[in-house]
Amino acid sequence: MTCGTVHGVGLGPGSADLMSVRADRLVRSARHVAYFRKAGKQGQARRIVDGMLRADVVEYPMDYPVTTEIPLHDPRYAQSLSGFYETCAAHLRALAEGGEDVVVLAEGDPFFYGSFMHLYTRLSPHVPVRVVPGITGMAAAWAASGQPITWGDDVLTVAPATLPEGELTRRIAETDALVVMKIGQNLAKLKRAVAAAGRQAVLVEFAAMPEERVRPLEDVDSAPYFSIALIHGQGRRP
Amino acid sequence: MTCGTVHGVGLGPGSADLMSVRADRLVRSARHVAYFRKAGKQGQARRIVDGMLRADVVEYPMDYPVTTEIPLHDPRYAQSLSGFYETCAAHLRALAEGGEDVVVLAEGDPFFYGSFMHLYTRLSPHVPVRVVPGITGMAAAWAASGQPITWGDDVLTVAPATLPEGELTRRIAETDALVVMKIGQNLAKLKRAVAAAGRQAVLVEFAAMPEERVRPLEDVDSAPYFSIALIHGQGRRP
Repeated sequence: MTCGTVHGVGLGPGSADLMSVRADRLVRSARHVAYFRKAGKQGQARRIVDGMLRADVVEYPMDYPVTTEIPLHDPRYAQSLSGFYETCAAHLRALAEGGEDVVVLAEGDPFFYGSFMHLYTRLSPHVPVRVVPGITGMAAAWAASGQPITWGDDVLTVAPATLPEGELTRRIAETDALVVMKIGQNLAKLKRAVAAAGRQAVLVEFAAMPEERVRPLEDVDSAPYFSIALIHGQGRRP
Repeated sequence: MTCGTVHGVGLGPGSADLMSVRADRLVRSARHVAYFRKAGKQGQARRIVDGMLRADVVEYPMDYPVTTEIPLHDPRYAQSLSGFYETCAAHLRALAEGGEDVVVLAEGDPFFYGSFMHLYTRLSPHVPVRVVPGITGMAAAWAASGQPITWGDDVLTVAPATLPEGELTRRIAETDALVVMKIGQNLAKLKRAVAAAGRQAVLVEFAAMPEERVRPLEDVDSAPYFSIALIHGQGRRP
């Protein structure tokens, strides 16, 4: 029997028509589709492909055992997630070894942060895994902002707002262009860091989604999960 | 008469099926298509859409007046390019003001480096301009490398190899994950900077194209224009 392939498919930032043509074709023809979600929610990845799946599709939702209930640096967090990824990977591996292709839905790009990578490292030694790159959430965010992010020889830094405040401030001060992800509970810290670095940022919420909104970061008091802060580069422009 | 729209359309990294569904639709239905190229060449953007254009399409190739003949910091370089962008923008503006929609083909993502941005700033005060984000060359490069680029709280730095060697070395030493673009003539300098920073990098040539190739940077003696160096992040992975 020929082994099936696990496809890690980047869905792009949130609008179905910002999926690549290759991703669109794989999603529409898939017999097996797997995706992460918070337990009890539909999840963003599954929402993006709504109305695109085959009538006889077999869905494998992967419900995170924890999200924010256990702090990130508590050893129980890593243990719980590690067991979860092992279980998910074993299921997908068994499907592939049984000759089935599987599409794993990944928001944005599969190799740029995100959870698919934890399956990839567990699966790729055993079964064929192919990755379809996707449009990142940050690319949708800078498109929404109406300004190019990098010009000429600009340096771009992508940093998570989870960094310690001092490091965040230093990174913001030392870069030409900036993207900050994972804002959520770190919004107040990020605002202080941007101000301390003497820079101006915008916050893009729900880029490429119907609720898309762009505001100066300093005007924002709470940030949803799908929000990205940007500082635009000012490099060479003939 | 209703004014037409100029669409800055990200074509992705080089394979036609890595264009977004939205880009694919715009390209196939366009009556007017514009693209940059080196004089005398077809150009990468035009190559990607080969076979997709309407039979009655009107093409507007924009031939760069200079590429590497004049050094980047010579004032004549900026003057020559500035006049060129003005001419191109005036042509596209006239089309839009005459009621025509125009698709400007942009490799990768239109707001991430690249030439479209120089038209955007000149056109957007006068006529409607819409940007369709695209899959970046770097996303295709890290997919080709077979390893995720960023994990957990990794910081990613995107730097052009045109930076002075000391700054390049410092940026490489201080980041978790790295992407280097604009390598070409700067390959030897980049190799020294990576070694001085004590890091290991891979070079991805022609990502998402038939000639795709991945090698340790230290083994490489010359780099084509479409090459990107990567250092993979080593962040949290439960």
